[in-house]
Amino acid sequence: MSKPLILICNDDGITAPGIRALVEAVRDLGDCVVVAPDKPQSGMGHAITIGNPLRVYAQHGLFGDIPAYQTSGTPVDCVKLAVDQILHRKPDLLVSGINHGSNASINVIYSGTMSAAVEGGIEGIPSVGFSLCDYGLEADFALSLLIARRVAEAVLHHGLMPGTLLNVNIPRIDPVQFRGLKVARQAAAKWKENFEERRDPHGKAYYWMTGEFELMEEREDTDEWALRNGYASVVPVQFDLTAHHALTGLQDWGMQAWRLQDGF
Amino acid sequence: MSKPLILICNDDGITAPGIRALVEAVRDLGDCVVVAPDKPQSGMGHAITIGNPLRVYAQHGLFGDIPAYQTSGTPVDCVKLAVDQILHRKPDLLVSGINHGSNASINVIYSGTMSAAVEGGIEGIPSVGFSLCDYGLEADFALSLLIARRVAEAVLHHGLMPGTLLNVNIPRIDPVQFRGLKVARQAAAKWKENFEERRDPHGKAYYWMTGEFELMEEREDTDEWALRNGYASVVPVQFDLTAHHALTGLQDWGMQAWRLQDGF
Repeated sequence: MSKPLILICNDDGITAPGIRALVEAVRDLGDCVVVAPDKPQSGMGHAITIGNPLRVYAQHGLFGDIPAYQTSGTPVDCVKLAVDQILHRKPDLLVSGINHGSNASINVIYSGTMSAAVEGGIEGIPSVGFSLCDYGLEADFALSLLIARRVAEAVLHHGLMPGTLLNVNIPRIDPVQFRGLKVARQAAAKWKENFEERRDPHGKAYYWMTGEFELMEEREDTDEWALRNGYASVVPVQFDLTAHHALTGLQDWGMQAWRLQDGF
Repeated sequence: MSKPLILICNDDGITAPGIRALVEAVRDLGDCVVVAPDKPQSGMGHAITIGNPLRVYAQHGLFGDIPAYQTSGTPVDCVKLAVDQILHRKPDLLVSGINHGSNASINVIYSGTMSAAVEGGIEGIPSVGFSLCDYGLEADFALSLLIARRVAEAVLHHGLMPGTLLNVNIPRIDPVQFRGLKVARQAAAKWKENFEERRDPHGKAYYWMTGEFELMEEREDTDEWALRNGYASVVPVQFDLTAHHALTGLQDWGMQAWRLQDGF
């Protein structure tokens, strides 16, 4: 039986410490291939490159004997290039990260790391995104590495429900205080924007995006609660965005009758 | 009573014919403000600009007496800039589009037009994205304009469930054959990548992303079915990505017991 094929991506770029930790975490679990952006792509969400061509360069040697490629594209582009151009069969597992910073709660929407995992899910590949809630350059990935390995093993063993993937966030915590992994749902939250206006040397305004995270609930079944209470959070994510609970209410609007002959 | 404040965005850029049609559709419904990218941003998904500053330029006059601003950012940046820097109160309605091309089915994930509407939803603004299933430069927006106006009126009247927004797609069809609006769910589909490899003048490879749309179901309650049968589709969209139906199965994995002392 051939070993599992494992595709490793991220959004912080191929030279980020987090992807190095992720490679270490899963390298013994199968045949690994790294395909990652050539520069940081945080906050790229599910962006793809349509109006420009893409470059792909082999970077073998960056991760020992594991084949590695950097691309000029977004995290989602990396997954698409890997599936269509680089790999010769569908991967058995996609792991993305380890992201430098939280992708819990509403951050899942903006995250390139998670969008790579979502794209894997769309491709039918069991996929997991990992994030450490520590933006520091000196962040310690030791606990994250252990968790990533264990979760990757479990996904290879159990598989995932079709149409779903996992969003795993690891708290910034002393490992001896770590309480385990908690299955959770995405907490309701938003970022309150607060753009900082500056003037360029020519007197013209420009704006830096900053913001404050606004948590809108504290329920125990959420990822934010888990992370604030010593757990790593595991949220199953789907890419069917239909608000199924809103379908019935909309049907009451009578829109199906809006035709041209009705005074449209 | 003051008139509703309506924020108008898109992803095809402030000079696209689609946003002009959308302005025409809603201009009588309230006080309108346009905030849109200064260049095409199709496929940007939910990307935001973190590593670079943003520019905002007034473009009053582009839409008659309606204030208009172009930004150097993504569609989501436009919404954030509008809410924090340009508008003085929360809009009563956000409309995005009219997109040149379908955002039905899995396209909702990649679409900058829909991501602007999703960001509006996150901000608590009743929000709708509109797309015409016609990529042609000469696309006829007449039917789309009528639909956009009617839906905008309905959303101002009924409101939307918290945590939801609308994805409205309009078929490319002779208006007399139009059968009405159909409330639907997102059809299961994916894009099958097919990168086209070319060589630059220096002999190095580069890749253009192309792909084929693969519809994975034909059920009558889906947006794709509606569009292929003469209806415009109306899908309620949510930004809670939790796969709630997958929570129980994951709990059986016993992950909460994975602590350091258990041989982690």
